[in-house]
Amino acid sequence: MAILGGKAIVAQSGGPTAVINSSAAGVIQTCLENPKVFTAVYGGLNGILGVLKEELFDLGAEAPAEIDRLRRTPSAALGSCRHKLKDLQTDRTDYERILEVFKAHDIRYFFYIGGNDSMDTAAKLGQLAGQIDYDMIAMGVPKTIDNDLACTDHCPGYGSVAKYNSTAVMEAGRDTDALYTHDTCTIHEVMGRNAGWIAAATGLARRRSEDAPHIILLPEVPLVIHKFVDDVKACLTEFNRCFVACGEGVKTPDGNYLADAGGNFAKDSFGHTQLGGAADAVRAIIESRVGIKARTNRAGTAQRVAMHFASKTDVDEAYMAGAAAVQAAMKSISGKMVTLERLNDGGKYACTTGLADLEEVANGEKKLPAEFIDSNGTGVTDAFRQYALPLIAGEAPVEIGPDHLPIYTRLARKPVPKKTGTEYDVR
Amino acid sequence: MAILGGKAIVAQSGGPTAVINSSAAGVIQTCLENPKVFTAVYGGLNGILGVLKEELFDLGAEAPAEIDRLRRTPSAALGSCRHKLKDLQTDRTDYERILEVFKAHDIRYFFYIGGNDSMDTAAKLGQLAGQIDYDMIAMGVPKTIDNDLACTDHCPGYGSVAKYNSTAVMEAGRDTDALYTHDTCTIHEVMGRNAGWIAAATGLARRRSEDAPHIILLPEVPLVIHKFVDDVKACLTEFNRCFVACGEGVKTPDGNYLADAGGNFAKDSFGHTQLGGAADAVRAIIESRVGIKARTNRAGTAQRVAMHFASKTDVDEAYMAGAAAVQAAMKSISGKMVTLERLNDGGKYACTTGLADLEEVANGEKKLPAEFIDSNGTGVTDAFRQYALPLIAGEAPVEIGPDHLPIYTRLARKPVPKKTGTEYDVR
Repeated sequence: MAILGGKAIVAQSGGPTAVINSSAAGVIQTCLENPKVFTAVYGGLNGILGVLKEELFDLGAEAPAEIDRLRRTPSAALGSCRHKLKDLQTDRTDYERILEVFKAHDIRYFFYIGGNDSMDTAAKLGQLAGQIDYDMIAMGVPKTIDNDLACTDHCPGYGSVAKYNSTAVMEAGRDTDALYTHDTCTIHEVMGRNAGWIAAATGLARRRSEDAPHIILLPEVPLVIHKFVDDVKACLTEFNRCFVACGEGVKTPDGNYLADAGGNFAKDSFGHTQLGGAADAVRAIIESRVGIKARTNRAGTAQRVAMHFASKTDVDEAYMAGAAAVQAAMKSISGKMVTLERLNDGGKYACTTGLADLEEVANGEKKLPAEFIDSNGTGVTDAFRQYALPLIAGEAPVEIGPDHLPIYTRLARKPVPKKTGTEYDVR
Repeated sequence: MAILGGKAIVAQSGGPTAVINSSAAGVIQTCLENPKVFTAVYGGLNGILGVLKEELFDLGAEAPAEIDRLRRTPSAALGSCRHKLKDLQTDRTDYERILEVFKAHDIRYFFYIGGNDSMDTAAKLGQLAGQIDYDMIAMGVPKTIDNDLACTDHCPGYGSVAKYNSTAVMEAGRDTDALYTHDTCTIHEVMGRNAGWIAAATGLARRRSEDAPHIILLPEVPLVIHKFVDDVKACLTEFNRCFVACGEGVKTPDGNYLADAGGNFAKDSFGHTQLGGAADAVRAIIESRVGIKARTNRAGTAQRVAMHFASKTDVDEAYMAGAAAVQAAMKSISGKMVTLERLNDGGKYACTTGLADLEEVANGEKKLPAEFIDSNGTGVTDAFRQYALPLIAGEAPVEIGPDHLPIYTRLARKPVPKKTGTEYDVR
């Protein structure tokens, strides 16, 4: 098949990570290195929203040094979104608008960096383009701290959130070690609404049994109150303190999120009903049923963009995934997401890229497998450690400014003049 | 005055920090370098609690490399406490017990690393020892992330929590920048119950007006709801997003903590009463009165022990303060706390140590001065930047293990045999 040629667009979607910009750098730099194929490289402002609104900017106009700095810049420098497109089966207008914009600008390559929903968008766009005989290539680049995408060994973003959170738990665990006579229990909430990959990663901090986290609450293991209370009491007997790492998506045996049900479990010591995240619900359980003081930590969005202590392996693989998407597109491959494939090079970790159908990724979800969870359901196995440890290897470089804080780039975002002549009502 | 000579004890008190162990290393190594004066160096387990219970351990028996590793280890390696001694005026038993333990072991030097309360303890102990003609030296080493101790330019622990939090706000601010179409507002809560030093430090992240934090809520500036709502709306008009850094000790105009009053302000969108920290109360205000979605981040204890991105200046000064306490004690100085004094060496920051009376420190508190707060009450001035920037200079070294996580030490804590023959009922 002949090389298509034309303009490329790259966009970012969903929750930011420490390394989604590294993937963007991989896409952008590889495109710019091949100007005969990619006649221009545009960015879509705030993911697919920017395409719908025809808010595009010219990445070729950015200073090359700033593009390179994307490798060391957290969050989504092109802007992100959580916009859900209309259902293709019932209302094609969103997809038709996207193709209208692409046609107007002769955009022939679409690189979408995101999770399940983004892969679904890219897949459907490719299908519709085929139906109307508009030649274009749609490629996906995986991105999610949740590490729950199907078809790939792991996801760019996971290694960094794992490294940061396991370090934060190691440190906060030391805090509880020191002050246990006053603050006996700490509950450290981490992200992960449906899968326990991030919560499991905090288990890497536990080098010795006395180390935090003593108990890990995973979304995959329903929280049975009386068992949990017994686990906490046993921990207090053994260590005088208890450090709990808690996935935000921990569920009760009836399948509801603990965070939503917090108020049903207990009143706090002032008689107020608890409301908040999963950690607040766990705190209510511990304070009312174990009778000790508990504190909660919840770094929130700060954990997923903690570039100041990110995994170098993750940053490098994120870049590699972005570059691989462009390389595949140059071979006229379309409708695929780049995957990360683990090589066992004589026991030494190595990683290469592969390809998976966008539809397969869009419809899949990878939870923490049973062999990674210990027999009590509150810790991780050596098999998990072997899986996860290589992903946190190396410390990503941090560029420090004269004000002693990290230097992160902001792109100039030189606007591309609009060509469709139509406004589109984004709902 | 002749050199006293005898055993030394060092203990740590209050909330852990990234650098309180660096101060301990300064005390311990300087004592061990002077064995003719200090015949042994003991640690008190969990601060003054360990002295009361005669739970002491021999720091001279630790591997020297592990003592040195204290400089790179967060939290309180000797154990800490929040134990309040009985009031000396009404019940001398606690103080008499401490002196009983000191006499039994011939402990002549007491080095207490902590905040106001610890300085009060050390001061009173020194007074009582004088009254009963027990020759001993009591020296204080400052420690508090809150930076609110009197008589010192700044406090060991502050530079590191400032560096970590300003970095976290810079990063989380980028997250809000990227996802503002969905998550328009983020409230990032930091520690500081009575003084706004830590909240103010997040202002260092704001290099340009569009950068987070757009609004800083300080305990020194009462939160007036309608003004705050107006500030948020103005921010949204200018930047489409709003990032609020919030000190946990923010107060309402009637002097109550916002965190305690959260439930009075607003019901959340589900009709539940809000309860939680200050950030939760701020979120309730924003969601109900501005009508946008807001997220909250609260790193909790993880922020004060974030050794993985601590200030090298802070680590070094903490060590210097510990060493200076020992050097003063060797000159038979007693009843003093080491202070940090800023030198203006031709415009270049430099720092040396001084001494202040323990009583003066115990009775003082240093809030954020008016000249450090901008005219709107929601930002910091250049004078504050000039004050704070040197304190976050340099990145403290992090030793990484084969598991790609930091190596922190655990002391062996070889117990010192008890000598008093009496149990003491600690209440």
